[in-house]
Amino acid sequence: MLRCAVIGATGYTGAELVKILLRHPRVQLEALTTRQETAIPLKDLVPGVSKKSPLEIRKFSLPEIKRKADVVFLALPHTEAMGTAQEFLRAGKIVIDLSADFRIKSASVYEKWYGVKHRAKKFLRHAVYGLPEIYRDSIQKADLIANPGCYPTAACLGIAPLVRDGLVELDSIIIDAKSGVTGAGKKLNPATQFCEVDENFYAYKVNRHQHTPEIEQVLSETAGDNIHVTFVPHLLPLNRGILTSIYMKKRGSVRVSDIRKSFEKAYGEEPFVRLRKDGEFPALRNVQGTNFCDIGFTSEPDEDEVIVITAIDNLVKGASGQAVQNMNIRCGLPEEEGLLG
Amino acid sequence: MLRCAVIGATGYTGAELVKILLRHPRVQLEALTTRQETAIPLKDLVPGVSKKSPLEIRKFSLPEIKRKADVVFLALPHTEAMGTAQEFLRAGKIVIDLSADFRIKSASVYEKWYGVKHRAKKFLRHAVYGLPEIYRDSIQKADLIANPGCYPTAACLGIAPLVRDGLVELDSIIIDAKSGVTGAGKKLNPATQFCEVDENFYAYKVNRHQHTPEIEQVLSETAGDNIHVTFVPHLLPLNRGILTSIYMKKRGSVRVSDIRKSFEKAYGEEPFVRLRKDGEFPALRNVQGTNFCDIGFTSEPDEDEVIVITAIDNLVKGASGQAVQNMNIRCGLPEEEGLLG
Amino acid sequence: MLRCAVIGATGYTGAELVKILLRHPRVQLEALTTRQETAIPLKDLVPGVSKKSPLEIRKFSLPEIKRKADVVFLALPHTEAMGTAQEFLRAGKIVIDLSADFRIKSASVYEKWYGVKHRAKKFLRHAVYGLPEIYRDSIQKADLIANPGCYPTAACLGIAPLVRDGLVELDSIIIDAKSGVTGAGKKLNPATQFCEVDENFYAYKVNRHQHTPEIEQVLSETAGDNIHVTFVPHLLPLNRGILTSIYMKKRGSVRVSDIRKSFEKAYGEEPFVRLRKDGEFPALRNVQGTNFCDIGFTSEPDEDEVIVITAIDNLVKGASGQAVQNMNIRCGLPEEEGLLG
Amino acid sequence: MLRCAVIGATGYTGAELVKILLRHPRVQLEALTTRQETAIPLKDLVPGVSKKSPLEIRKFSLPEIKRKADVVFLALPHTEAMGTAQEFLRAGKIVIDLSADFRIKSASVYEKWYGVKHRAKKFLRHAVYGLPEIYRDSIQKADLIANPGCYPTAACLGIAPLVRDGLVELDSIIIDAKSGVTGAGKKLNPATQFCEVDENFYAYKVNRHQHTPEIEQVLSETAGDNIHVTFVPHLLPLNRGILTSIYMKKRGSVRVSDIRKSFEKAYGEEPFVRLRKDGEFPALRNVQGTNFCDIGFTSEPDEDEVIVITAIDNLVKGASGQAVQNMNIRCGLPEEEGLLG
Repeated sequence: MLRCAVIGATGYTGAELVKILLRHPRVQLEALTTRQETAIPLKDLVPGVSKKSPLEIRKFSLPEIKRKADVVFLALPHTEAMGTAQEFLRAGKIVIDLSADFRIKSASVYEKWYGVKHRAKKFLRHAVYGLPEIYRDSIQKADLIANPGCYPTAACLGIAPLVRDGLVELDSIIIDAKSGVTGAGKKLNPATQFCEVDENFYAYKVNRHQHTPEIEQVLSETAGDNIHVTFVPHLLPLNRGILTSIYMKKRGSVRVSDIRKSFEKAYGEEPFVRLRKDGEFPALRNVQGTNFCDIGFTSEPDEDEVIVITAIDNLVKGASGQAVQNMNIRCGLPEEEGLLG
Repeated sequence: MLRCAVIGATGYTGAELVKILLRHPRVQLEALTTRQETAIPLKDLVPGVSKKSPLEIRKFSLPEIKRKADVVFLALPHTEAMGTAQEFLRAGKIVIDLSADFRIKSASVYEKWYGVKHRAKKFLRHAVYGLPEIYRDSIQKADLIANPGCYPTAACLGIAPLVRDGLVELDSIIIDAKSGVTGAGKKLNPATQFCEVDENFYAYKVNRHQHTPEIEQVLSETAGDNIHVTFVPHLLPLNRGILTSIYMKKRGSVRVSDIRKSFEKAYGEEPFVRLRKDGEFPALRNVQGTNFCDIGFTSEPDEDEVIVITAIDNLVKGASGQAVQNMNIRCGLPEEEGLLG
Repeated sequence: MLRCAVIGATGYTGAELVKILLRHPRVQLEALTTRQETAIPLKDLVPGVSKKSPLEIRKFSLPEIKRKADVVFLALPHTEAMGTAQEFLRAGKIVIDLSADFRIKSASVYEKWYGVKHRAKKFLRHAVYGLPEIYRDSIQKADLIANPGCYPTAACLGIAPLVRDGLVELDSIIIDAKSGVTGAGKKLNPATQFCEVDENFYAYKVNRHQHTPEIEQVLSETAGDNIHVTFVPHLLPLNRGILTSIYMKKRGSVRVSDIRKSFEKAYGEEPFVRLRKDGEFPALRNVQGTNFCDIGFTSEPDEDEVIVITAIDNLVKGASGQAVQNMNIRCGLPEEEGLLG
Repeated sequence: MLRCAVIGATGYTGAELVKILLRHPRVQLEALTTRQETAIPLKDLVPGVSKKSPLEIRKFSLPEIKRKADVVFLALPHTEAMGTAQEFLRAGKIVIDLSADFRIKSASVYEKWYGVKHRAKKFLRHAVYGLPEIYRDSIQKADLIANPGCYPTAACLGIAPLVRDGLVELDSIIIDAKSGVTGAGKKLNPATQFCEVDENFYAYKVNRHQHTPEIEQVLSETAGDNIHVTFVPHLLPLNRGILTSIYMKKRGSVRVSDIRKSFEKAYGEEPFVRLRKDGEFPALRNVQGTNFCDIGFTSEPDEDEVIVITAIDNLVKGASGQAVQNMNIRCGLPEEEGLLG
């Protein structure tokens, strides 16, 4: 059994992570922590646990967790995770960090987009970006896994095979993304009050979202060339899910069958990416509560545009499910363990 | 033209009030105020006004409003309205107060439920409770109109005729009420964040809601006897509307036809109360955006229960529409003016 | 391993049942059926199953299921289940029927409320009503389990202990129930089109809902006396969950501590009923996706009213989860097996 | 007073149209019709009308309407309007058709996308496309006004000035549109049942939507060149509103200030188009219930992409409000009459 800890268990991703780990047959949950002083019964956080469950979320204690856990999940806010991560790395733990703190290779790019100094630069080069469909080999050996952002997961899975295989123009990528409100986290915010979101819809951080450099880093590495994308996120009046509609120009004589082949080669054996049939496109309903990324695409024979649509659950494949997938890969467990059903 | 001012124009009820007054053919909007320092263009508050509208919501200035307005609407938070009301009353203005500050006749009852000292007790006895269907005659002469709460409006309109006509047991009244989220106001609140309300439903302040004494005061006055009610509000995952399901025991030999007669006598000529046909019940959809209260009821011949269901828009008949109805009555205008369509 | 079949797997309750059974460690899903001619891949019905899952929902074949399954779940529409149930009972199978066809002991009462002849009357007396908290002993030995309706589950669990212990007046029971839209099933219906339900709320079938006799039967059996209830269902603009607010009169000198004791005695050891602390009430959020029924209650010392609020997920404790709980009881498995997490 | 008739008053656009016309100070509503046999009181369709309103929606009668009305609005389904339109045109009426039947100049293009023969070809060349911001001069003289589709209105207003002024590459236009569910009309449809739409989101008719040729026709006429667009509509889980995110490539040395100038020139004097300030983008909330189209845009100095975001209410500026705007223009009334507030 893997001895696991979740640091920051009371946010949306933290609670989802605990819920998944509780069902995982090879995991022993050794510690769930919060910054609050008073302990919280687990059953107040995860509604489905047994009435008799003695588990609690308790105030964070570094020595206790060092003693008890081998795998430490950090579900802390961005800019707060880096310090804690260092402590656990120095103690020889496997750290899976759900924040953005170790996703961007360049400290200066991170500092520009997140507005704080990076305080753990020396660990940046050890961090592996935890998108298994692209970086699985490195994840198997990593002690610090930077779990991807929700938008980058949805976007990169729809684009990476095509830029790797040279099928699309690298300067033509437009990502029109739509996310449910849990993506904004639990922090109190006038913009996410019910009456502001309900029956409403709008774009935000147009070309200014902090996930932009993350998407560009992954795609540039995959293409072996510098890629800049247009990325426009929108807020949906619903709880969970991200759908991205991606627009790219095909290169030269590329045909739609080339695109299908590229996706099939990339994802045919992937446990958590599903290609839709021709003329079918994903819906949030099909991925909510699952670790799947669904992908549909189309391209008119006489047009140079290719349209790819992807869907994920932002809290599962976009956060906590992917973190467990990464744990499975890193710890030599079957990759689907605990993530189906 | 009536020269009107709205104090506190940026909350949900304030904005709705401005929207209604803008359409009113006999009203000149002289001042819209806020506590914020910087002026807000009206078109940011009321989406439908002309692009060229020069109207602004500006920082509150007592002397300016005294000079410009004859009718002053207060859309301030409870406990903050009473001081301002006094100032305008002393200046001889007609004050229509949408807060709870002058609704409860007894200062001690007010202080118990609202947790603050009443600082304008001498005006309490001048205040008239602004429910036209019950207090129209007094409203015609009042300089201080205490505009009813949203729940009390929905509840009292469904009960008052039956207690006035002695058709139901006075100790049997149960009000199961359900409200949309605008009822909670614009204040930032973890409980009204989108992800907490969406797809959720629950009761709150069970038998503890501050509208309870207001309902009991109106019904006791109407019945000429002391009435205590059971009142349980619930939060609906939607923006606007209150539906109340009211349960009462019929007295002795009362028949369903007696109940219909009682309602028809009370509301046959009322412009803003509509009785549903036998076997039909109101839906929020039918009253949203309107000043109507819809009422349906049923009672089995061999049962002693009578069920009354009422629906209103909490921001219109439950607040700002009713305030304008009160203004029309007080100022001798046709009661429906500005409130239909 | 129990060999199970689900007849009618494509409706909302059928799909939820399949999802639960897939996770159940002691169940082998042998057959999933539909009336449609063409087979449906399971992954189109349950989004979280493995990409490689070979399972399909196939056209119903009586001989095949008789051969393959020992426990047969019927998730068919009311009035269609009774014929199929007979076939499996004659073949010696354990039948768990999620329809209403065997819930009402009296064929004439059934025929009055459901408007069809009962075509399997001889099996009515063998049927056991599958509400484990009341009928667990009989369920252990039953071959035909009539799985309760969603409203009766939510209502009876909040009332039964109090009528059994003689704490409330039997003629005073009022059930104000609110349900999500999945309760109406998947049938195409103008009343459940998105634009009619969204931002709307209303009561329907006031005192006319077909679950009324089911509630009355269970409570009458529990009380040992004839009970008539007032039952008013409402439609919530959300997918899943039922919340009932129940109003009753206390008998004579009953105190709130007596009520707490009654609930604790009834549910202290129950795996799927949770009592809230004093002053706390359930929310749909806490039970969605779980097999729990949460119960809160209150009663003022000087009032004769007691208010009980219950919440369930209509598709889980109100249908498919309870069906699996019944299977566990009947087949000697741990009662929580497959139903937590 | 203009004597008006609404043919097909019971659909979503029909009811919205009636609601707007009722408030219009220069309109006399002479006839509201339906295909149903029994008359419907207007107050069942428009919740805010007076209790005493004698207006009814009655079965369509051609001679009656010819006698009573001068302006005839057709709110009939596509393919059904063309026959009726002919009758009224021959009788010398002004016809404002909200269907698609006269929007497409080419009968063969119409027939390809709508799948039926055009039965009123001779009137096609008389029809004027009712987008006032582009075709105002022609609308002033037209007897047959083809009121634009909701998506084309939202899309063309965001693109037309830029193609007219030669600021963007004509082959680079991508329209990612998101619409509320009223856009689908009132027809019973499994895809628009509440449980299928709530908490869901997806693209539909990707590059296959029948509004595509309409958009292309308007833009091609405006540019004086053949334009082909990529158009991907999505379904939002809400009632009203369309938001389009439009992506285009700037031509040569075009700067963001050129784009602002182009929009200001086009819309500075337009009563129903509002430009957002730099860095601000529209939200559905700001346009719901109004006839406004809000437009925001951005373009990085060193990028060739320009992003334009537009928002309208699909039932108002996208249908019935625009129809009334067209009536005002055609009949010489102030263009904003009846459309503000």
